[in-house]
Amino acid sequence: MSDKKAERIVIIGGVAAGPKAACRVKRLMQEAEVTIIDEDSLISYGGCGIPYYISGDVSDESELRSTSFHMIRNESFFEHAKGVKTMTLTRALAIDRQKKVVQVEQVQSGVRQEIAYDKLMLATGSRPFMLPIPGVDLDGVFTLSNLHKAIEIKKRIASGKVARAVVIGGGAIGVEMAEALTDLWQVKTTLIEFMDQLLPRIVDFPMAAMLARQLRDKEVTVLLAEGAVEVLGKDGKVTGLRTSHRTLEADLVIMATGVRPRSELARDAGLQLSCLGAIVVNERMQTSDPAIYAAGDCIEVRHLVSGKKFYAPLGSLANKEGRVAGDNMAGIPSVFKGAVGSFIMKAFDSCIAATGLSHDVALAEGYDADVALTAPADRAHFFPTVNNVVFQMVFDRRTRRVLGLQGFGPMGDGISARIDAAAALISTGGTIDDFGTLEMAYAPPFSAAIDSINAAAYVADNICDGRLRKIPMASFLQWMEDFSGQPDWIALDIRHPKEVEPFVLKFGTKKWLGVPYNEIRARYQELPADKTLIVLCDAGTRSFEIQSFLDSVELRNSLVLSGGFNVVRKIGVDWYPQ
Amino acid sequence: MSDKKAERIVIIGGVAAGPKAACRVKRLMQEAEVTIIDEDSLISYGGCGIPYYISGDVSDESELRSTSFHMIRNESFFEHAKGVKTMTLTRALAIDRQKKVVQVEQVQSGVRQEIAYDKLMLATGSRPFMLPIPGVDLDGVFTLSNLHKAIEIKKRIASGKVARAVVIGGGAIGVEMAEALTDLWQVKTTLIEFMDQLLPRIVDFPMAAMLARQLRDKEVTVLLAEGAVEVLGKDGKVTGLRTSHRTLEADLVIMATGVRPRSELARDAGLQLSCLGAIVVNERMQTSDPAIYAAGDCIEVRHLVSGKKFYAPLGSLANKEGRVAGDNMAGIPSVFKGAVGSFIMKAFDSCIAATGLSHDVALAEGYDADVALTAPADRAHFFPTVNNVVFQMVFDRRTRRVLGLQGFGPMGDGISARIDAAAALISTGGTIDDFGTLEMAYAPPFSAAIDSINAAAYVADNICDGRLRKIPMASFLQWMEDFSGQPDWIALDIRHPKEVEPFVLKFGTKKWLGVPYNEIRARYQELPADKTLIVLCDAGTRSFEIQSFLDSVELRNSLVLSGGFNVVRKIGVDWYPQ
Repeated sequence: MSDKKAERIVIIGGVAAGPKAACRVKRLMQEAEVTIIDEDSLISYGGCGIPYYISGDVSDESELRSTSFHMIRNESFFEHAKGVKTMTLTRALAIDRQKKVVQVEQVQSGVRQEIAYDKLMLATGSRPFMLPIPGVDLDGVFTLSNLHKAIEIKKRIASGKVARAVVIGGGAIGVEMAEALTDLWQVKTTLIEFMDQLLPRIVDFPMAAMLARQLRDKEVTVLLAEGAVEVLGKDGKVTGLRTSHRTLEADLVIMATGVRPRSELARDAGLQLSCLGAIVVNERMQTSDPAIYAAGDCIEVRHLVSGKKFYAPLGSLANKEGRVAGDNMAGIPSVFKGAVGSFIMKAFDSCIAATGLSHDVALAEGYDADVALTAPADRAHFFPTVNNVVFQMVFDRRTRRVLGLQGFGPMGDGISARIDAAAALISTGGTIDDFGTLEMAYAPPFSAAIDSINAAAYVADNICDGRLRKIPMASFLQWMEDFSGQPDWIALDIRHPKEVEPFVLKFGTKKWLGVPYNEIRARYQELPADKTLIVLCDAGTRSFEIQSFLDSVELRNSLVLSGGFNVVRKIGVDWYPQ
Repeated sequence: MSDKKAERIVIIGGVAAGPKAACRVKRLMQEAEVTIIDEDSLISYGGCGIPYYISGDVSDESELRSTSFHMIRNESFFEHAKGVKTMTLTRALAIDRQKKVVQVEQVQSGVRQEIAYDKLMLATGSRPFMLPIPGVDLDGVFTLSNLHKAIEIKKRIASGKVARAVVIGGGAIGVEMAEALTDLWQVKTTLIEFMDQLLPRIVDFPMAAMLARQLRDKEVTVLLAEGAVEVLGKDGKVTGLRTSHRTLEADLVIMATGVRPRSELARDAGLQLSCLGAIVVNERMQTSDPAIYAAGDCIEVRHLVSGKKFYAPLGSLANKEGRVAGDNMAGIPSVFKGAVGSFIMKAFDSCIAATGLSHDVALAEGYDADVALTAPADRAHFFPTVNNVVFQMVFDRRTRRVLGLQGFGPMGDGISARIDAAAALISTGGTIDDFGTLEMAYAPPFSAAIDSINAAAYVADNICDGRLRKIPMASFLQWMEDFSGQPDWIALDIRHPKEVEPFVLKFGTKKWLGVPYNEIRARYQELPADKTLIVLCDAGTRSFEIQSFLDSVELRNSLVLSGGFNVVRKIGVDWYPQ
C-alpha cells in the first residue's frame, strides 16, 4: 500500500465549468491538490457579458473578471482565496490515461512537463464555427471566442475606425452584437441570417418576426434567407461582405455562426464522443473513463423533453454541471439530469425568451405538436404599468404535454417569470392542465388574476379539445398580402366600430365585415354562411368566444386569429391603416 | 320522459369565481341557461385592485369593472356579450336541494321568487372578520369587503377629511392599504399588528423585518405585538384607537384582520363544511351534493406541500377554481389539485413574495424544517441594473424537499420570476437538488450564471449535509444588542479592511476581528480557538468558504451569518457604524 497522499485533481479549462468545479471540490476536500490548466492568460471571466462589454454597458473588461465583491479572479485570487493552483498560458497537449498524466506545454517558453492526476476534468469549452468561405482570415473579421477578441473589437470601435459592420448569424450572440454595435456606438450594422428567420430552431415565426421588427425599428438592417459568400478585403483588411443577394460594405465582420465542442484532447485520449463531437458523459459528469470528468461547452446533455442528447453551450449550464462534477470528484453522488434549453435575450427595448422545444423542432422530432399563440396583458389590465406581451405555447395533442413556451415583451423581468416557471414545469413533464392551474403569485402590480401563462394553457386546452379552430398567423399575413390566394375568406372584425372603420374603408365590405363583439348574438344572421369567417380581435380571446357561439347556431365556418392584432402590430405590416 | 329542455345553471355570487364559471360553462354549452345571482349592484370587479384604486394608481372604480378592451362588465355586458343572465340586487335566501330551487329576494322590493336549477354553484365568497372590540360600528371604521366601501373611503380621503388613519392588521391587505394611504394622499398612517411581525405565517422574521423597515422608511408607523382594544369615537364618528400600549388618534380606521368564508347558505342547505366553516369540495369543485358546485373564497383547497386542506382566499385561485367548476358543470372532468399559497406584494419601492410553507408554519406542521437565508445579486453582478435581493429557502432536512421560498427585493418582476418558478417545482415535490439544477433562462441583463434560486439551493444543500453551520439572523442581531448574552462569541469579519475598520473601532478587538477573506489561509493561526467565531461577510457566501477551510485545519468553532450584512442593512439596525 502506498502512503496516503493528497488527492490530485487536475482541471483543464479555466473559464466557467472548470473554476466552478475546482472551487467546489477544494471546499469539499481541503486536503486535495487542485490545479486548473488554461492556455490563456485570462481565466474565469463572464463570457456571456462580452456583448455588454462591447456595447459599453460594462465599461471595463476587468468587471467581467471580478467577483461580486470586487476582487479580480486571477491566479493570485485562486491561490490565496480559493486554495486552487492555476497554470495559465499552459496548453494541455495530451492525456496518458494509463499513467494518469497530462502532458502540458508552456505557451511562451515551449517548455513541456507532465502533470499527474488522480482525477481529471475536461472543461475545454467550445470554439466558434467559422463559415468555410474566402476571406475569413482578413484583418477585421472576428469571432467572439474569448475576451482578447472582445477587447480588440471594442478598441477598434472606440477609436472610431468602424463605421459599418456586418454580423453573420442571427442567433442570440449575433442579435446581441447587432444591438451592441448599434445602440451606443451607432455603427451602421447589418445582421445577416441564412435561414428565413432570426433565432432559428429557438423560437417560431411570430416571435422571430417581432424581434426582427424591433431590430429594424432601431436601425439594424436585418437580412433573412441570405447567405454569406465571401468576405471582401483590400490590403489584407476587410472591406465588405458578398452575400447570395448583394455586396455589403463593412469595416468589421463578426462571425456569430455558432460554436462547436473542443474535444480533440478527449478524442485523442480515446474517450467516447458523440457524433457531433461532444464528449459523452453520464449524469454524474463522468466520461467513458471513470477517472475523467467533463462539463461545460465540450459535452452534450440530455434534453428533458425529448430525452435525446443535445448540445447546449450555455454559461448557466456549465456552472451547474461544474458543481456536479466537483461534487462527484469529492465522492458526493450529485446528478445533473439534463436541460430544457431555456433562453432569454435583451433586444433594445424588448425581451425575447424560450424554453423547451419550438414548434418547428417539435414537429421535426415527431410530436403531434400544435401551438397556442396569445397576446395578453402581463399584469392586471387596470394597473398603470401594464404591458401587452406575447406567448406561444407548444404542446403535444396526443399527450397534452407542454413541450415549450416562447415569450416576447418589453425589456424587464416579466417574461423571465413566465419562462422560468414554465421551464420548471416542463422539466417535470407538465401538461396543459398543469399549466392551467399553475400558481403564479398574484397581485395587480405583478400579474393578472388569470396569469398570462394560465391563459396560454386555456387556449391550448381549447385547441387541443377541438373547441378552437384557428389560422396560423403566417397564413393570415399571407392572405392580407394577397386576398386572391383565399378568395372565399372574409374578415369578421369584432372590435369596436371605431377600430374597424379604417379597415372597412381600405379593404371594402367584401373582404372586411365589422360586427361588434357584443352584438354578434343579436346579429349573427347577417353573417355569410358560404364564406370562411376569419374572426379578428386584439388578442384572439373574444374571437374564440364568438366562434363558440357561432358553432352553436350552426355557423361552423369560422377561424380564429390567435394572438390577433396585438401580434400583427408587433410584427409590423405595410397594409395596416394609418 | 320529460321534453329535452335547456340545462339550467344557477350561480350564486358574481365577483370572481362566479362570473368565470358562468362564462366558461356558457361557452361550453351555449344551449344552457346560465344565471348569476348577486345581492350587490356591482359585480365582476377586480377586488384585489381596491388598494390601488384607493391609492390613486387606478383612477376610477370603473376600471376595476372593465375588460381589457374597455367594456364595463355590467348586467348588459353579461347578457349581450356573454349570453349570461344576471340578477343583481337579488339575495339568495335558501336552497331547496330536493326541489332543486333557490329562494331569492329582490333587495329593494323584498319580492321573493324561486329559481330552479339543474346545477347550482356557490361562489358566495368571504366576509371580513371584525375584531370583537367596542366601537367598530362608529362612522369611519371600514373593512374592504366590497367596492362600495372602497368608493366611500376614497371619497373621504379625497375630500381632505382624513389626516390620520390606523390600519389594523399587518397582513397583505393591511400593508397595501398603509401604502395606499401614505404614498399619494400622505395620510399619517399607523399599521398595527397583534403578532410580533408583519405578514405572520406568510413569511419569516428576516423578510418581515425588511418589509417593516421599508414601511418605516416611508413614514408609516409600524406597531408590532400590539393589540387593538377599542375604537374611540365622538358623536358617532371615529376619533382614534386604543391599543394594548397607547391611544392613537385617527379619522379613519381600516380593519384588515382577515376574512372568513361566507357559507351560511351552504350550511343551511346541509352541505358539508370544514371546521373553519369553508365549504368542502372535491377536486372537481363538487360539494357533498353532486348537483352543487362551489369555488372561490367560500371553499377550502388542498395544500400541495402539506397535503392538508387550507383556506386560501385569493382572486387568482378563485378564477382557476371557477374555470374548473365551469368545465365540470359542462361535463368536462377538469380537476383543481390544490395550491401552494403563492403570495406577492408591492410595498413602496420594494416587493415581497412567498410560496409554499414558511419556516414557522413548517415547524408547526412537524417538518424537520430548516432555512437557507441568502442575499445574492439578482442578475450578472457586472450588469448595470443589478440589485441585491434576499431569498429564504425552507426545506425539510429528512427528505431534502423544498417546502417554501420567500423573496424580498426592489419593486419589479425579478422576485416574481424566482417565486413562480419555485411554486411550479414545489407543487411537484421538488427537492433541494432539483432547485440546484433548476434551469433559469440566463443572460446577464436577467440573471446570473448561477441564478439566485440555484444559489439558495446550494446553501440549503450545504446546510442539509452538515457542511455549513450557521447562526440565525435573529440570534446575531440579539447578540449585537447585548454582547453579554454570548460572552464567548467574537465576530470574524472577512470583508475588505476598509469595510471592517469602523466596526473594529466601534466594538473593539475583543468583539470584532478583521482578517480579509483572501488572507485567512495564510493567517488562520491568529484566530482564537477558544471562542465561537461568527464569520461575517456581505452575503454569507465567502463566510461559508472560510468555515470550510477552518474546519479542515481543525478550527471547528465557527458559525456563518447566512445572508450577511446585505440582510442586516435591509433590516436596519441602530448600531451600524455611520
